[in-house]
Amino acid sequence: MQPLKPSLALDMMGGDFGPRSTIPAALAALTEFPELELTFCGDKPLLKRLLAESGVSAHPRIHFVHSDDQVSMADKPSLALRTKRDSSMRHALDLVEQGAVHACVSAGNTGALIAMAHYVLKMLNGVERPALVSALPSCNGKPVYMLDLGATVNADADTLFQFAVMGAVMAEEVIGIRAPRVALLNMGEEEIKGSDQIKRASQLLQECRDLNYIGYIEGNDIFSGKADVIVCDGFVGNVALKTCEGVAKLILKRAQQGVKQRPFAALLSWLCKPALKSLYQGMNPDQYNGASLIGLRGIVVKSHGNATKDAFLSAIRQAVCEVQRQVPAKIKDRLEQVLIDKA
Amino acid sequence: MQPLKPSLALDMMGGDFGPRSTIPAALAALTEFPELELTFCGDKPLLKRLLAESGVSAHPRIHFVHSDDQVSMADKPSLALRTKRDSSMRHALDLVEQGAVHACVSAGNTGALIAMAHYVLKMLNGVERPALVSALPSCNGKPVYMLDLGATVNADADTLFQFAVMGAVMAEEVIGIRAPRVALLNMGEEEIKGSDQIKRASQLLQECRDLNYIGYIEGNDIFSGKADVIVCDGFVGNVALKTCEGVAKLILKRAQQGVKQRPFAALLSWLCKPALKSLYQGMNPDQYNGASLIGLRGIVVKSHGNATKDAFLSAIRQAVCEVQRQVPAKIKDRLEQVLIDKA
Repeated sequence: MQPLKPSLALDMMGGDFGPRSTIPAALAALTEFPELELTFCGDKPLLKRLLAESGVSAHPRIHFVHSDDQVSMADKPSLALRTKRDSSMRHALDLVEQGAVHACVSAGNTGALIAMAHYVLKMLNGVERPALVSALPSCNGKPVYMLDLGATVNADADTLFQFAVMGAVMAEEVIGIRAPRVALLNMGEEEIKGSDQIKRASQLLQECRDLNYIGYIEGNDIFSGKADVIVCDGFVGNVALKTCEGVAKLILKRAQQGVKQRPFAALLSWLCKPALKSLYQGMNPDQYNGASLIGLRGIVVKSHGNATKDAFLSAIRQAVCEVQRQVPAKIKDRLEQVLIDKA
Repeated sequence: MQPLKPSLALDMMGGDFGPRSTIPAALAALTEFPELELTFCGDKPLLKRLLAESGVSAHPRIHFVHSDDQVSMADKPSLALRTKRDSSMRHALDLVEQGAVHACVSAGNTGALIAMAHYVLKMLNGVERPALVSALPSCNGKPVYMLDLGATVNADADTLFQFAVMGAVMAEEVIGIRAPRVALLNMGEEEIKGSDQIKRASQLLQECRDLNYIGYIEGNDIFSGKADVIVCDGFVGNVALKTCEGVAKLILKRAQQGVKQRPFAALLSWLCKPALKSLYQGMNPDQYNGASLIGLRGIVVKSHGNATKDAFLSAIRQAVCEVQRQVPAKIKDRLEQVLIDKA
C-alpha cells in the first residue's frame, strides 16, 4: 500500500512561536505538495482567525481537531503524559494511532513528545527504546544520520544495535544510500576503548551480516563523511549535537571579531557575511532539520522548539518523505530479517 | 615550600613528531623561563645529536635520563604499563614520583600515560579517579575549564563531585577566578533530566557550601561563558571535545568554499586566510593547549599527540604554572576541607 495522498496531523500550538510559525509553514507545505492533507490540532477558533488574517478563510485540504489544552515547554514529560490528554500534541499522536493520518509533526516539548509518542503509538516489535535521529551536514556534502540525539539515556548494547539497524534503514530509504556505512561513536578508534556497552554493541554489529558496520568513529569524524550512520547513546548524542551549536556560535563570533580587526574590515565583513551566515545555519542542524522519532509504530517528526516557518516546513517535508517511504514498516521488516539471520 | 626553580621531566620521544617538536619547544621554554630545569627522557645519543644540530652542544639546565624503549601511539595501555618500564614516558613519571622533578609533560599515547601515571603516582587521598582537564575558549574571552575529557569512563556521582572540586581549584589557582561557577553538563537544564549519576551528583553539589554550583548546563552553553568549570564523564567530555574539532574543520571547509564562490575569489581567499586560520586554531583546544591529568600525587601535563613545537611549549608553560601554584596540594587541601564541612 503506497499512500499516494500523504496526510499529516500538525501540533499547531507547539514550539516557542506556536501558530505564528506553524501556520505559514503549513500553508507553504500545502502549496508544495498538491495532494497533502493536513489536520490542524490546536485552538480551532484561534487557528481559524489567524488563517483568515493570512487570507485563507477555508482550505479544502485543511481539517481541524480542536484542543482546549496544550503542552508547554516547561511541562514535565510524566505530568504532561498524565494530565494533557486534551492537548494539541496528544491529539496529533492519537490521530496517528487511530490511522486517521499517516504521521504527525510537532515543535513542542521534546521530552513530553517522546513520552506521549511512546505511550500512544507503542514500540515496533524488536525495538526496545525509541531514538531521535537527524541528518547532519558533512564535509563531502552528503548528509550523515546520527542517533540517538536524546530519546534514550543509558542505552545498552542491544538498544545501540537496534539503533544501528534503524539508522541504516533511514539512510537507505530517506536518502537512498546503498549499504550505508554504520559506525559507533566512541572515544577512540581502538577496539579496547570505550564503555562495556559500546564494546558489546560493537561485537553484535560485527556479527551482523545485514549491516555494513565499519567500527568506531570519534567525535572529530562525525562530519568528515567517513560514516553514513553514527550510533550513540541519547545523552552523548544530545551533548554532541548541542556542542556543535555552541561551537558554531563561538566561531561565528570570533570570525566577526577577526574580520573587524583586519585591514579593509568593512569590505571583508560585507563579503564574508553570507558565507558565515550560511555556514552557521548549516551547522545548526537541530534548528534547521526535523528530527525523526523512530522505533515507534507510527511516524513522528520533531521540529526544533525554536522553529521558524522554514524549520517547521522542513519538518513537514521530512514527515511526507517518511510516509512515502513507509519508514516504520521498513524498519520492522529489516529488524525481523536481522533477527532471522542471527538465529 | 614555593618551588622557585621549577624542574620538569619531558617525555622527548612521545607524540607524532617526537624530538622534532619536543626539542625546539624545550629550548624555547628554557629561554622563556630562566630558572627552569629540564630533564630530557628518551634516546640520549639521538637527543644529543639533534640538540647539536640545533646549535646546542651542551646546556647547563638540560639533564638526561636515557631510555632504550618508548611507548608508541598504538600500544595498549595495559600492555604499555606492564612492558614499557624502560620507556621515556615511564622514566618521566618515575622522576616525578621520586621527587627528582616537580612535574612531567608528554605528548605520547594518552591511554598509556593515564594508566602509567595512575600506577606510578597514585591518587590523592579523597580522589577515586583521575581526570583530564583543559581550558577551552569562550565567547566572553575567559577560559572555561572542562573535565573529564577522557581519563574516566562511567564516572559515578561521587567521582563527578570530586571532579567538580578539582576543576574549581584549577580555575581558582591557575587563572585566578574567585568562586568559579561550576556546572554539570547535562542534556537539559531541568532538574528531571539526565542519568541517575548526574542527578545524584547534582544533589551532592547542591549540598556543598564550598563550591559555587550553578546547576546543569547544555552542550550549546559550553563556550557561552555561563560557567567557569564544566563537569562531565570522560566519555561524554571526550566526544564533546572531539566533536568541536570536527565542527571547526567542517566550518573552515565551508567558509573556504563560500569565499571561493564569490567574485575576486583568489584575492578574497588570500585576505581571509589569516582570519580563518586563527579561528580554526582557537577552536582546536585539544591541539593548542595542554590537558592536565589531575587527582594524582604529582603534576602530569598531556600535550596533543599531534603536538607541534608551539603546542608542546604551551604544555610546558601549563606544567610550570601548576608547579608554581602547587595544584595537587591545593586540590588535597580543598577536598579535605569539603569533607570536613560535609561531616
